[in-house]
Amino acid sequence: MFHIQRKSNTPLTEQIRREFSDRIRSGTLPIGSQLPSVRALADTLGVSLVTVVHAYRLLENEGIAEKIQGKGTFVRGAAGSTTHNPEAGLDWQLALVDYLPRAAVFGLRSQRHFNDVPYNMSMASLNPQLSTASLPASFYHILQNTASVLCEYGPIAGMESLRVDIVTYLRERGVRTHMEDILITNGVQQAIDIVARTFVGPGDVVAVEAPTYAGAIDVFRARGAVLVSIPMDDDGMRLDLLTKQCDKVPPKIVYTMPTFQNPTGIVMSARRRAQLLDLAESYQFLLVEDDSFSDCSFVEAIPAAIRSLDKRGHVIYLKGFSKVFLSGCKVAAVVSSGSVHNRLAAAKSVSDLGSPLITQALVRQCMLQPIRSKRITEIAQAVRRKRDIALNVLATQAPSGVSWSNPKGGFNIWITLPPHADTDALLLEALKRGVAFLPGSACYAAETSHNQLRISVAHLDDKALQVGVERLCGVLSDELKSLDSRHDRHFPIV
Amino acid sequence: MFHIQRKSNTPLTEQIRREFSDRIRSGTLPIGSQLPSVRALADTLGVSLVTVVHAYRLLENEGIAEKIQGKGTFVRGAAGSTTHNPEAGLDWQLALVDYLPRAAVFGLRSQRHFNDVPYNMSMASLNPQLSTASLPASFYHILQNTASVLCEYGPIAGMESLRVDIVTYLRERGVRTHMEDILITNGVQQAIDIVARTFVGPGDVVAVEAPTYAGAIDVFRARGAVLVSIPMDDDGMRLDLLTKQCDKVPPKIVYTMPTFQNPTGIVMSARRRAQLLDLAESYQFLLVEDDSFSDCSFVEAIPAAIRSLDKRGHVIYLKGFSKVFLSGCKVAAVVSSGSVHNRLAAAKSVSDLGSPLITQALVRQCMLQPIRSKRITEIAQAVRRKRDIALNVLATQAPSGVSWSNPKGGFNIWITLPPHADTDALLLEALKRGVAFLPGSACYAAETSHNQLRISVAHLDDKALQVGVERLCGVLSDELKSLDSRHDRHFPIV
Repeated sequence: MFHIQRKSNTPLTEQIRREFSDRIRSGTLPIGSQLPSVRALADTLGVSLVTVVHAYRLLENEGIAEKIQGKGTFVRGAAGSTTHNPEAGLDWQLALVDYLPRAAVFGLRSQRHFNDVPYNMSMASLNPQLSTASLPASFYHILQNTASVLCEYGPIAGMESLRVDIVTYLRERGVRTHMEDILITNGVQQAIDIVARTFVGPGDVVAVEAPTYAGAIDVFRARGAVLVSIPMDDDGMRLDLLTKQCDKVPPKIVYTMPTFQNPTGIVMSARRRAQLLDLAESYQFLLVEDDSFSDCSFVEAIPAAIRSLDKRGHVIYLKGFSKVFLSGCKVAAVVSSGSVHNRLAAAKSVSDLGSPLITQALVRQCMLQPIRSKRITEIAQAVRRKRDIALNVLATQAPSGVSWSNPKGGFNIWITLPPHADTDALLLEALKRGVAFLPGSACYAAETSHNQLRISVAHLDDKALQVGVERLCGVLSDELKSLDSRHDRHFPIV
Repeated sequence: MFHIQRKSNTPLTEQIRREFSDRIRSGTLPIGSQLPSVRALADTLGVSLVTVVHAYRLLENEGIAEKIQGKGTFVRGAAGSTTHNPEAGLDWQLALVDYLPRAAVFGLRSQRHFNDVPYNMSMASLNPQLSTASLPASFYHILQNTASVLCEYGPIAGMESLRVDIVTYLRERGVRTHMEDILITNGVQQAIDIVARTFVGPGDVVAVEAPTYAGAIDVFRARGAVLVSIPMDDDGMRLDLLTKQCDKVPPKIVYTMPTFQNPTGIVMSARRRAQLLDLAESYQFLLVEDDSFSDCSFVEAIPAAIRSLDKRGHVIYLKGFSKVFLSGCKVAAVVSSGSVHNRLAAAKSVSDLGSPLITQALVRQCMLQPIRSKRITEIAQAVRRKRDIALNVLATQAPSGVSWSNPKGGFNIWITLPPHADTDALLLEALKRGVAFLPGSACYAAETSHNQLRISVAHLDDKALQVGVERLCGVLSDELKSLDSRHDRHFPIV
């Protein structure tokens, strides 16, 4: 059913617990379904009965599984019961093994009640009104003039005219490349997936920042990677810790977001960028540089992309055009050199034979100058205003004990609560009040931190954002009061 | 580097040869790159030195590898030399292990000279003029009226209004389903990929028809599946042989195209469809029914989809809308029930967080009645005319010894040459004369047959198709003459 990693530092019990916990939380193991018998699982994985019994007990303690005497262990629902019956006749499917350990993003986004939340600050996407306000007129003529984009399979690596324009765009940002090194994907999520399916297999070590983009963790876990989390400081990923990992077991891939990191907003210093590339060369790993948010900058200058320093093809540079250009078109570019590019293009072919031409043609209209510069400036200004609205509310209404980031770009604010808070539970309370955020647990690959959360300011209009953050502060205040009283109960002051 | 399957019937030597051959032919191992040393590979795979030496010798015999004394074994180019130097500084990449055994479609489509071929009959896609001729006027208003589709992330499972319309459309064809069971993907290629990444892992058995869709083989190979090929007769996949396989090792997935099978055009009989579903229930396998071509039918009635008989969620039904609707939009639907649907939707999330809304909105315009029926009728008539053009040329100009299918629907004609012909080599000759086809070898999962080829009639306009098939007949005549003379040389008549 899943990969047990005997060489990992994570105990087997914890590995088993996490695999089931991820599947249950993602909804891929539905409420009421039966977990494998202890003996069967122990046999399959080649572990002792005690290990499995212990892992199942941890799931019970988590409140997501329930042991029914004489029957077995079952997935327990939000309501605390396993009474849900799977659709009649479909029970045989529960025995079907799958290879999807974790799909945290799916688990969160497929919660029905998310759709109707008036103050949804959980998704890092741009406000649609803001996004359509400055669309060029040329845009609306595409379908009339070149309907053939609707009816032709494009090149697997992407529309050539778009790739040429991306070369120009990247040159302005210090990244020199050529059309043949660019691969178009369906957003950065698919870009990460294509890198992973090409280069990551069971047991391969992948290092990521802690916290990091939840969708990247989903991808690497699905490939059976050993994920190593590297903490950050104000200058980005801590390379002293990464070097220690390299000396122990060098990663095959290091995935980093050096500019306006998601979710923390941290910018990696120029010096550290150069050092990270040095490490990649010394230990021969692939450095995946995800540059999704750099177009939305509130400051004059940001350090050059690591890819601009790369001489020997160690960096796979991912540039998403969903954040500032057209999120609905889901167009991203992957820049890589040599055989790496060829292999990624082959993987794109296996994935879907190439992205649609119409979405590429539309994004291209936004990429042409002077439209591009105008759009980037306007959107960065608007998002900066939204950030200030959110920061002002936090400064005046957040309870003491709560801290937050002050991002210089990007869409996200990262909020930290006192250590014993649980933002997964808090989300349920917030949803009742019409507010949604991303719980921090989704952003951690290994050890899970439950006292953080991410809000994205770009999606709501200014007025809704103001109300949304105010309500969030109300939720936080209530939680902290309740935390205090619980704390009192457990550790009475003597 | 790759999965060795010790339980497979395929000898280890052949497994190693095939892995390298696939990578070299796909272009993922570039000309001039060095294969691992014999000792290193033997160690990694845990096989004897002799096994590796033997496999390398087979690659040399194939003409795609070259041993250089004292240096090692290298990938040999089309020109027969290894003189090509990889880009300076990028050599370290050659040591990077990847997980892409085969990308045959990429290998074929990325050949540069394919782009400029005037008579390209290699791709099963519709003529763009034909496709845009009957687009509804409503179409061109989408961008003006609902620009928000460009700027919003849609639901992971797909646009709800499109899924509702697909339910109506499928009901007309006997498939009863509901919106919640439909998942939208980027074409059928991604649909197959999502099924495979969810349910297929190393060593899992997948049964496919022989021959079958090349892109499906690429996907299952990439997951490390053991592919079992089931031959066909005039009624479709031979279930006597599939049953034997089930008694030996039951497959986890059976992938079939019951209607206008690609590439043969065969229609599975109604009786056999029911029997195949019975087998799925008995052996608890998932039946992946790929129904890409049924909209392009030249006959009154075709048997009902297997999915229409499915009571217990064994069938995953794939319906592509690229063939007859808008190929450039790459929209397909996956119909499945119960937890299978949930798990596939989670995999879609990991892959790319959902398809673009704009392509779904455009396809939806074509799906609305009466546009849909009109379009289906017109396109089926036009493709039937093209089929007749191609069949007429073959009947009058193909050399004796060549036979071909007479499809009742779909885009493809399957052509069989005498046993010793080699259509891979023939393609190079055809390209010189401006003609492209799909060599049959790409369509076989295991044993490779080299004396077949597929032409698609739908892409060229009528006049070009006439010339293209005439030229192809010329190429075939020359090949058969040359075959005869070679044959004479080897087996002189005494």
